Amino acid sequence: MGADETARQVASTMLAREGTGPFWGVEIEEAGEGYARIRMVLRSDMLNGHGIAHGGMLFALADTAFAYACNSRNVKNVAAQASIVFLDAAREGETLIAEAREQAVAGRAGVYAVSVRGEAGRAIAEFQGYSRSLGGPVIESGLIKEDIND
Amino acid sequence: MGADETARQVASTMLAREGTGPFWGVEIEEAGEGYARIRMVLRSDMLNGHGIAHGGMLFALADTAFAYACNSRNVKNVAAQASIVFLDAAREGETLIAEAREQAVAGRAGVYAVSVRGEAGRAIAEFQGYSRSLGGPVIESGLIKEDIND
Amino acid sequence: MGADETARQVASTMLAREGTGPFWGVEIEEAGEGYARIRMVLRSDMLNGHGIAHGGMLFALADTAFAYACNSRNVKNVAAQASIVFLDAAREGETLIAEAREQAVAGRAGVYAVSVRGEAGRAIAEFQGYSRSLGGPVIESGLIKEDIND
Amino acid sequence: MGADETARQVASTMLAREGTGPFWGVEIEEAGEGYARIRMVLRSDMLNGHGIAHGGMLFALADTAFAYACNSRNVKNVAAQASIVFLDAAREGETLIAEAREQAVAGRAGVYAVSVRGEAGRAIAEFQGYSRSLGGPVIESGLIKEDIND
Repeated sequence: MGADETARQVASTMLAREGTGPFWGVEIEEAGEGYARIRMVLRSDMLNGHGIAHGGMLFALADTAFAYACNSRNVKNVAAQASIVFLDAAREGETLIAEAREQAVAGRAGVYAVSVRGEAGRAIAEFQGYSRSLGGPVIESGLIKEDIND
Repeated sequence: MGADETARQVASTMLAREGTGPFWGVEIEEAGEGYARIRMVLRSDMLNGHGIAHGGMLFALADTAFAYACNSRNVKNVAAQASIVFLDAAREGETLIAEAREQAVAGRAGVYAVSVRGEAGRAIAEFQGYSRSLGGPVIESGLIKEDIND
Repeated sequence: MGADETARQVASTMLAREGTGPFWGVEIEEAGEGYARIRMVLRSDMLNGHGIAHGGMLFALADTAFAYACNSRNVKNVAAQASIVFLDAAREGETLIAEAREQAVAGRAGVYAVSVRGEAGRAIAEFQGYSRSLGGPVIESGLIKEDIND
Repeated sequence: MGADETARQVASTMLAREGTGPFWGVEIEEAGEGYARIRMVLRSDMLNGHGIAHGGMLFALADTAFAYACNSRNVKNVAAQASIVFLDAAREGETLIAEAREQAVAGRAGVYAVSVRGEAGRAIAEFQGYSRSLGGPVIESGLIKEDIND
């Protein structure tokens, strides 16, 4: 099975197991080795007192894309640290896209940059996540579906 | 009205206006000038695929305490950036406490440290938030309830 | 004058004016719009007690590349915040390369990712910098050298 | 030997072994368990092109205090990540104080807040450092000087 197909199965398995992603309406647009792009529509229960996206929800979306990207090789990784810069407000009903890209991997550590963008590609937030590998698979090998066309 | 009473009114007003805090079951334990301590019980829709607190929800809780602390003088402040270190897992049903303390204020900028702790004071995460003032009040003056005993 | 030529003049002017860059032996390899790549050889006065690069010097190198990149349009920008993940040790005499790339710009804010790499492209550190524009030029217009071939 | 005496010996041993601290003129004002306060006078080779402290040198000073604090129990710790917010300019000849305080320790991880202040206690920068323990002592036991009055 190819690296990108593994990444797609890991991302969809992680999403299905979470309490958060399905509840937030997260959808996976694309996953690949060290990469994930996901989408979420901002709801009223995700807004702060100014009626715009709560910073916690922008972080949560970016952190979700980061999790799929840093686990994409089917090796269990967890977030050790993350930093986010808030650039613009996002509004109720707006579709947000979070795109995670691997910046570097060294030993058990990895660093990922995640861009959160709103409509017309407007920059909403930039996130940097630092992961550490725990070893072991995310999906046990028997559970990975072989794709004979891959 | 005293500084701590203003802070309490700002925090409770912000919480009441938010889509997030009431939905997450956030409760304010204490608020003061440059300070806030809040509480939340971890629910199943706040868990990641490993059955532990999603990093996004730990950040969201810390960010909420940070928001109350940096707006505590009834001057509108927004989060410009934040960083979080994840130290331990938190489990479903666990009560989490986030305590925000002001580190420094300079011009329109402020820096706050927020500790997230679980049962028995176990360290769960440490957050640093950077706020910038927009000016203007969070609560219009007529809406602040005068406490004649204050 | 083209955007990349402006960026090159800004970077070389900033380097010449600094106390730090010339003292550290920083050399500019390339500069462009929202971009800078610089080089420094690690000296004994840049080492910590374990005989490896002091984290402060790795940050300082990344921060220097970030400064050139975020000022590259000849508009004065300053660092508001930065975060760095340390991935591997760097040794005395090793040549370090810091490469800064613009991630997003929104209003007066910008976010840049800077990779610090050692010999054979080994990942040493990953940095994220958040800049804010003060307005005004870095180099007064009369001082920019027109390149008639540009 | 008491915890604070160990911390003082670790800090002064680390400073003596470094290429950086003695070169930068760092002096230790106080060290204790999970704590360090150090001082440095800003020199012309520490300034950026605007004639104020280079962000890299502010970070380097904070990072040095963080290193002494996270190694204070004579167990080897290294910086995994750090974040800094820049609050105000510091000028040539100004004495800067960096004070590191332990925020939390969990397993091999630790988090420290470091305030950098200038003259009259002016807030210059706020730093958060994340350390990880490598185990093993900073100073071999035979080298620790017993203080019979301790």
